[in-house]
Amino acid sequence: MLRKLSVRTSRRIEFVDITSQVRKLVSESNITEGIVVIYVPHTTCGITINEHADPSVVADITLHLSKLIPENGNYAHTEGNSDAHIKSSLVGSSVTVILNNGNLLLGTWQGIFLCEFDGPRAREVYVKIIGG
Amino acid sequence: MLRKLSVRTSRRIEFVDITSQVRKLVSESNITEGIVVIYVPHTTCGITINEHADPSVVADITLHLSKLIPENGNYAHTEGNSDAHIKSSLVGSSVTVILNNGNLLLGTWQGIFLCEFDGPRAREVYVKIIGG
Amino acid sequence: MLRKLSVRTSRRIEFVDITSQVRKLVSESNITEGIVVIYVPHTTCGITINEHADPSVVADITLHLSKLIPENGNYAHTEGNSDAHIKSSLVGSSVTVILNNGNLLLGTWQGIFLCEFDGPRAREVYVKIIGG
Repeated sequence: MLRKLSVRTSRRIEFVDITSQVRKLVSESNITEGIVVIYVPHTTCGITINEHADPSVVADITLHLSKLIPENGNYAHTEGNSDAHIKSSLVGSSVTVILNNGNLLLGTWQGIFLCEFDGPRAREVYVKIIGG
Repeated sequence: MLRKLSVRTSRRIEFVDITSQVRKLVSESNITEGIVVIYVPHTTCGITINEHADPSVVADITLHLSKLIPENGNYAHTEGNSDAHIKSSLVGSSVTVILNNGNLLLGTWQGIFLCEFDGPRAREVYVKIIGG
Repeated sequence: MLRKLSVRTSRRIEFVDITSQVRKLVSESNITEGIVVIYVPHTTCGITINEHADPSVVADITLHLSKLIPENGNYAHTEGNSDAHIKSSLVGSSVTVILNNGNLLLGTWQGIFLCEFDGPRAREVYVKIIGG
């Protein structure tokens, strides 16, 4: 099963918790065992799994990434978003989650985040469920 | 097929080679072709694939990551483990390995590591095999 | 379906666009819906997805990664390629792409790159297609 989520980001750098939207798509499918691939078809944003209970966790991730990979560096790409491309390759453009008994097998503190590195923009997220 | 491994870590930062444990689970399954997803349901540890012949390789990885992302930084999250969350998103919470002819299709030097960034703790690793 | 690509790199650090080679393998299979895992069995190179329209994007990624993780650091591993191992764990040894209607579901700007961090070398890339 393949579905698409639309996410509108509102800042240049922002992690958007999409866990409940992914859960809804999974519960609407008839697949109860398998894996779920959550994928962004963009090159200046990524997908990650991290703690979604305390928002200061993802705040620290975004701030520290920007310290390591600043917006204004000595970059060759002239669109002003080289930092966003670099961060995207480090974070990755997809995550894979296990589907068990009809539920995403996430840990207690885990949430799924779209990682916006060059917003605000309209982003798409593909959710692919493979049974097995 | 879904199985769970338990891993006890003994230091704050430590890469634990779980290759042989994953291999054992794979050989116990009846699936010979497909993919294996190795996933940690935690937000302060990760999973990676790297050289497991010379232990100095993962020692260099842990040391250099801690140089880039120090334990004591100017973080908002007050639990003292922001560095562990940041490292987890960079390393990732899962790896996917190909299953071929009943074996993990790893390269000669490749091993699978649980990356502890906030131990010592009891950790779980999910191993999901999808045939195909 | 499992296939293998051979890639010869020509510099120590180099991102090689393998998108068209992966597309060819996918079109040769009879699988039209599912996922494709692109995997390197090496510990000093990785796989990433990023922009392949403007080559300055991957030039910036390689340069900035080398700034964060220099070739000559205070490393324990004595083969002179610790930086390559560290980069490989950050970038990752595989990517997963969705297969839809017989095509790789890549975004407009996305390409698949083998990330050479310790070349020049002869590298292999496994391409595994799972239908579903």
